[in-house]
Amino acid sequence: MISKQQQKYVQSLHNKKYRTEYGKFLVEGEKGILEILNSDFEIENIFCTENFKEKVPTDTKFKAFNICKEEEIQAISTFKTNNSGVAVVNQKKITTTPKVTENQIVLILDDIKDPGNLGTIIRLADWYGINDLYCSQNTVEFYNPKVINSTMGSFTRVSAHYLDLAPFIDGLKVPVLGAFLGGQNIHHLSLKKPFGLVIGSESHGISPEIEKLIDTKITIPRVGLAESLNAAVATGIILDNIFRDI
Amino acid sequence: MISKQQQKYVQSLHNKKYRTEYGKFLVEGEKGILEILNSDFEIENIFCTENFKEKVPTDTKFKAFNICKEEEIQAISTFKTNNSGVAVVNQKKITTTPKVTENQIVLILDDIKDPGNLGTIIRLADWYGINDLYCSQNTVEFYNPKVINSTMGSFTRVSAHYLDLAPFIDGLKVPVLGAFLGGQNIHHLSLKKPFGLVIGSESHGISPEIEKLIDTKITIPRVGLAESLNAAVATGIILDNIFRDI
Repeated sequence: MISKQQQKYVQSLHNKKYRTEYGKFLVEGEKGILEILNSDFEIENIFCTENFKEKVPTDTKFKAFNICKEEEIQAISTFKTNNSGVAVVNQKKITTTPKVTENQIVLILDDIKDPGNLGTIIRLADWYGINDLYCSQNTVEFYNPKVINSTMGSFTRVSAHYLDLAPFIDGLKVPVLGAFLGGQNIHHLSLKKPFGLVIGSESHGISPEIEKLIDTKITIPRVGLAESLNAAVATGIILDNIFRDI
Repeated sequence: MISKQQQKYVQSLHNKKYRTEYGKFLVEGEKGILEILNSDFEIENIFCTENFKEKVPTDTKFKAFNICKEEEIQAISTFKTNNSGVAVVNQKKITTTPKVTENQIVLILDDIKDPGNLGTIIRLADWYGINDLYCSQNTVEFYNPKVINSTMGSFTRVSAHYLDLAPFIDGLKVPVLGAFLGGQNIHHLSLKKPFGLVIGSESHGISPEIEKLIDTKITIPRVGLAESLNAAVATGIILDNIFRDI
């Protein structure tokens, strides 16, 4: 059961304003909640159906499940259909920016705006064992429900650091690659870690201010006529090439 | 200006039922409408702002622009914000399935459900010069506004053929690859066109019925912990590898 007050509170977390004010976010659906139960995130509350509860491994530490009817879950979820549950989770306070150590690829996002793209890039980072993303201040919010959902659970293993990109890149002291049209063919790269990789925004690519700080412009070879690729797809293709070579 | 009746008609095309009944679909926003004006699609009507109209090249054949206020465009658009326009366009009647000729990659989609993923795959096909997609009957509709929008104009150069996949693949008479977890590493493939490539659905991968018809299972090598990749991202990585090798 969920009270009127709880319902109002969870619904308020659909909005960034209240997520930031309360320092909470929502994890929705079976896959996401099972991942969060298995992570080091602090869970405030889980509203779920009896049916979902039965899928939770019995040795899970969290016990205080709040069993609800499907209609109740639906009313507090951002999903079109959700018959599993909604978890209210504490945002992690990230106070320090991790140092770029050897053997690291520094993945930098310059104004990615689409939540689905950011979520897909987080999932990709997790696939390639990259634990940290460095995002411009105008990149979409990590805790946006659409971002969380499209990570397919990878948000539990990848952190996003929001910062002023120009001074960050300037201080990196490693070569920085950037995805452009008309750069060096990624099939013929010869790379040595550590290095930085900048992915630009969906509509404008890498901003002029950041372009000045790029050491090597790289490009995915094109056969046909499309003007560009989706930002997350381009990130995936570049990462596959990077991990083929080093 | 747009009449009440026209408004109701365009809004009805937000729904698949009416798109199918009338054989029409919507193209929205600056990029999409400029691409459609430059294609062989038949345009029934374009509702647009004065501001958009000024961006149309003067030698464009289509002339009957219906100039509207921004609020009028917003009222008929599926976009959250649209200050350019909405075009009503005739669906193409696809009556024959193109033959698989030499030098061709037959890209096959087994139940892709997310419109953003289908749109992104159409954009990818266009990037790699693949003009035809072969889709299971349960793949999301090509003319869904979210599909059209996420192709970024590539829907004008790529056709989707909806068919029963099993007999189609069975009759292909070329080797068929399929994306799986635990298949052959795509970095070590040796390929010779023509061949087929099957991409499975977001939640269930390639269906058991189609799996039986796959000659070679292929896999994108993984470094980290994510269980899987987004379907469109996986398609992009595989296509980049295919076009590197042949």
